[in-house]
Amino acid sequence: MMRQRRAIALLRAALQHHPCISHTLPANPVPGIRLLSSQTGGRKENHGTRWQQTLGGIAAVSAVSLGAGCLSATAESSNKEAVFTKGDVSKHQTPEQRVWVTYKDGVYDITDFVEMHPGGSSLIMMAAGGAVDPFWQMYQQHLKDEVRTMLKPYRIGRLADYKGPERKDPAEDPWKNEPARHPALVARSNNPCNAETPGPVVAANLITSNDIFYVRNHLPVPPEPKDPARWQLSVGGEEARSTSLTLEDLKTKFKKTTVTAAVECAGNRRNEMKTVKPVRGLDWDTGAIGNANWSGVKLRDVLLHAGVDPDVCDSLDGPRHVHFLGADSDPLTGNVYAASIPIELAMASNKDVLLAYEMNGEPLSRDHGAPLRVVVPGVVGARSVKWVTQIVTSREESDSHWQQHDYKGFSPSVDWNNVDWSSAPAIQEAPVTSAITAPSANTQVEQGTTTIPVRGYAWSGGGRDIVRVDVSADGGATWQGTQLHKVPGQKPGRAWAWTLWEAEVILPTPPADSKGPQQVCLVCKATDASYNTQPDSVAGVWNLRGVVNNAWHRVGISVGN
Amino acid sequence: MMRQRRAIALLRAALQHHPCISHTLPANPVPGIRLLSSQTGGRKENHGTRWQQTLGGIAAVSAVSLGAGCLSATAESSNKEAVFTKGDVSKHQTPEQRVWVTYKDGVYDITDFVEMHPGGSSLIMMAAGGAVDPFWQMYQQHLKDEVRTMLKPYRIGRLADYKGPERKDPAEDPWKNEPARHPALVARSNNPCNAETPGPVVAANLITSNDIFYVRNHLPVPPEPKDPARWQLSVGGEEARSTSLTLEDLKTKFKKTTVTAAVECAGNRRNEMKTVKPVRGLDWDTGAIGNANWSGVKLRDVLLHAGVDPDVCDSLDGPRHVHFLGADSDPLTGNVYAASIPIELAMASNKDVLLAYEMNGEPLSRDHGAPLRVVVPGVVGARSVKWVTQIVTSREESDSHWQQHDYKGFSPSVDWNNVDWSSAPAIQEAPVTSAITAPSANTQVEQGTTTIPVRGYAWSGGGRDIVRVDVSADGGATWQGTQLHKVPGQKPGRAWAWTLWEAEVILPTPPADSKGPQQVCLVCKATDASYNTQPDSVAGVWNLRGVVNNAWHRVGISVGN
Repeated sequence: MMRQRRAIALLRAALQHHPCISHTLPANPVPGIRLLSSQTGGRKENHGTRWQQTLGGIAAVSAVSLGAGCLSATAESSNKEAVFTKGDVSKHQTPEQRVWVTYKDGVYDITDFVEMHPGGSSLIMMAAGGAVDPFWQMYQQHLKDEVRTMLKPYRIGRLADYKGPERKDPAEDPWKNEPARHPALVARSNNPCNAETPGPVVAANLITSNDIFYVRNHLPVPPEPKDPARWQLSVGGEEARSTSLTLEDLKTKFKKTTVTAAVECAGNRRNEMKTVKPVRGLDWDTGAIGNANWSGVKLRDVLLHAGVDPDVCDSLDGPRHVHFLGADSDPLTGNVYAASIPIELAMASNKDVLLAYEMNGEPLSRDHGAPLRVVVPGVVGARSVKWVTQIVTSREESDSHWQQHDYKGFSPSVDWNNVDWSSAPAIQEAPVTSAITAPSANTQVEQGTTTIPVRGYAWSGGGRDIVRVDVSADGGATWQGTQLHKVPGQKPGRAWAWTLWEAEVILPTPPADSKGPQQVCLVCKATDASYNTQPDSVAGVWNLRGVVNNAWHRVGISVGN
Repeated sequence: MMRQRRAIALLRAALQHHPCISHTLPANPVPGIRLLSSQTGGRKENHGTRWQQTLGGIAAVSAVSLGAGCLSATAESSNKEAVFTKGDVSKHQTPEQRVWVTYKDGVYDITDFVEMHPGGSSLIMMAAGGAVDPFWQMYQQHLKDEVRTMLKPYRIGRLADYKGPERKDPAEDPWKNEPARHPALVARSNNPCNAETPGPVVAANLITSNDIFYVRNHLPVPPEPKDPARWQLSVGGEEARSTSLTLEDLKTKFKKTTVTAAVECAGNRRNEMKTVKPVRGLDWDTGAIGNANWSGVKLRDVLLHAGVDPDVCDSLDGPRHVHFLGADSDPLTGNVYAASIPIELAMASNKDVLLAYEMNGEPLSRDHGAPLRVVVPGVVGARSVKWVTQIVTSREESDSHWQQHDYKGFSPSVDWNNVDWSSAPAIQEAPVTSAITAPSANTQVEQGTTTIPVRGYAWSGGGRDIVRVDVSADGGATWQGTQLHKVPGQKPGRAWAWTLWEAEVILPTPPADSKGPQQVCLVCKATDASYNTQPDSVAGVWNLRGVVNNAWHRVGISVGN
């Protein structure tokens, strides 16, 4: 524990954690990372990490950039392997010493993996010189074969004096107070809870009911305020007056506003990306999106109440960002979830950014941010901070892990070896997307079926309405129209809600001499009010974190036996 | 002339003209329209025009929906054809009588083409019962083989008493006052003038110089005001005070604002669409875009001056649109070019809609709208009305041809037989796009060349900045990064200017056993601030008018001999 506390003290300022990573790989696991004895790959990218450059000559190269064919033999567990003591391991806590960790009885040199850790290098460094086991118990998305597979290539030996897992004190379990969840939700990780609305249900109604609305938590759900009357939101920052507001203040001193808005996780549809190349992140299908009536007060009104200049956006040296800090904190570092949005968005009277205390007419549930959350319409869910307790204006963007080292998009050519997080802006507005929610993939329909009902959702960021959804029953060679269903009363340029769509799709006529079931590839693509249309292929928008996948959505079904 | 005048009187209210149509077809002309003796095509679309439904059983079906293989034999000129007099022809002026026209000595039954006329049915009906020749002289984009090829299938006979073309009175030539143009501009039609910036020049500088900025005119360039001091802009409409402003008023009573903004024709890159299926429109390559410093006054300020309520956008029953009417009028109908934008855009202080009197520091030239034009940043060029003389607030959108029957996008499944213009919104904001401007297509580089410089432009509508441009030298299988060049000082969310980009692109290594020149497919694609990325294929965004083509841009070059 001394070692852990020292690491915490040293790293607290910089530490950020992103527990959404599930290291999901294809069904036939491809080791994501292997240690090679020399630099590999035809052309050397000029973005090696500082440590790789310092260490010189030894580079960890991911399967992403090499292709499976390039992988050389790797060190793996064997009977002849080296044996180390805990004392040996504890001497390897810095890149200069090389970074060793243990997992169960294995000893691993992870020096070259540290900078590639999806949750950030700071967090994995907390385990340097010791066991990762207690951390994996804390961040349980690690407890899967894929993660163990990724660790394997770094194995350098065996722990001499391994005595089995240490007992946990149940009182210290940060997950012990998680709320109950609807059994229909499809879990993508348990602790933290990440669970999506099941496919057949996701677009069944224009409004998603609270109990099956997808849950995307980065950290343990914070406890409910012991005395709700004393709960406070703090507002302040640059060119703002420090102000505290109770929930009662928010409900009585400000106008109540209801906005119908979809909220979509930037990682929605990530599972399609791994068909191109491995990505790291929760294995979301199409259900990390929902549409609800959010009620609360306009963020603009609260900022004006705190003395923010209504013309702040025209100021040359005023604050440029509004930060949101949640009450959900990292059990080890104490860091809370945080994100920011541009002040133009926060202050615009027509952007409808809300501090919401109700979801579909009910007080927010614990999983959805009780007692107060941010809802930033038209923007990826990562900025709609739940359990918000602090709002801060600033000239700088949030420096949180989720703003600076995650939720950014890159070219398909960028991998974990050459990623420069500062080179891409934090994702705010979402691109146009759509998905088929029925029929499900691999549905079999009877021989002789000529048409089938197909339905789904479509949505675009920035309040850009969906003007059209096209569907295809031949993989995109020809297209058919769909009927759109919209939430009534949305204002021009403020189409925050999703659009549902359906069509009775005409299936292609099977060739006269065909035998066996006919394979049909259903496809949908949406066009929004700016005439942006979804890209055709996942490969073109593939990115190492698997975010904002908005390629045409494809569902394969078969007709006949 | 009596007949023409009668037609004008009857149709004036509805008449609109769109002379941008060049009926461009592939190099091997495919007749766009053929008259068939019965309805054809597997599945009948439910959108037949009113006349087709009235006439029943006889449908004109375009090659687009049928494919060349479905075309049946068509009536064409032969020695045995019927002979008609001008008197016979004059009895066919309505759909009930069937609509006949003559072109030179040919007689044509165009009843089934009328509704498919890209310039609108009203205009072609002016020639009903008589010769199209004088109209084609007026709208000279018809004077090309493709248009004659389209007419051919409708031929039903020969004119008995044809005496050759009538003499034109040069004094009546509406094109006699066109301004001189830079010889480097690449003409896509002469009268009206439509000419683009040549490829190698288009992205050579962040600011496009006035003389090579693309020209997109729908009608003859209006004469310069005889007495510039007496020129007036009229402002009025619903919930606005009727107001007249001289140019001096605009320059002295309002704050002068300069905005750097790209203006792009919605038809830019149309020429790629015809590789999928024929489209109708000017055959623009990548040069119907330019970027300039526009100076003038904010439309918002002028509307406020005319008494428009600053909170008009929140009004439940106030005006919803702002119309712009140009001084450029149709020589026959007198109709002027007109378009409208949503009032939210017009009134937003951060949308920077300008009434511009200067372009790059010089008074507007005649081709670019002298003395005053609208510049709607982030929106397709069709709404940036040149030679603007009237601004009108209204609850209704402009009913002009260019707002209601053109500059709209449809699914690839929609063709001229089933298009329902009212089913799609008028294009306003443009989608994200980019193009390679160097090297040119078919460039040959020396054997052994391993890298080549590639450059171009990228732009997105709505003020969404370009965050990345990727290039590929293998048709999009792998991608390389580019360096972006931006106009400095653009405000957040108001990136109206284009972004130029360049890269030294690594060419693929030719196979060891390759012979002859190596074919290389260069590709570019851009991503904007909403993480919208260009679609992969032109086929997916193909639409019958060939607008907003923003697919990946591809340029084929070869290495070696």
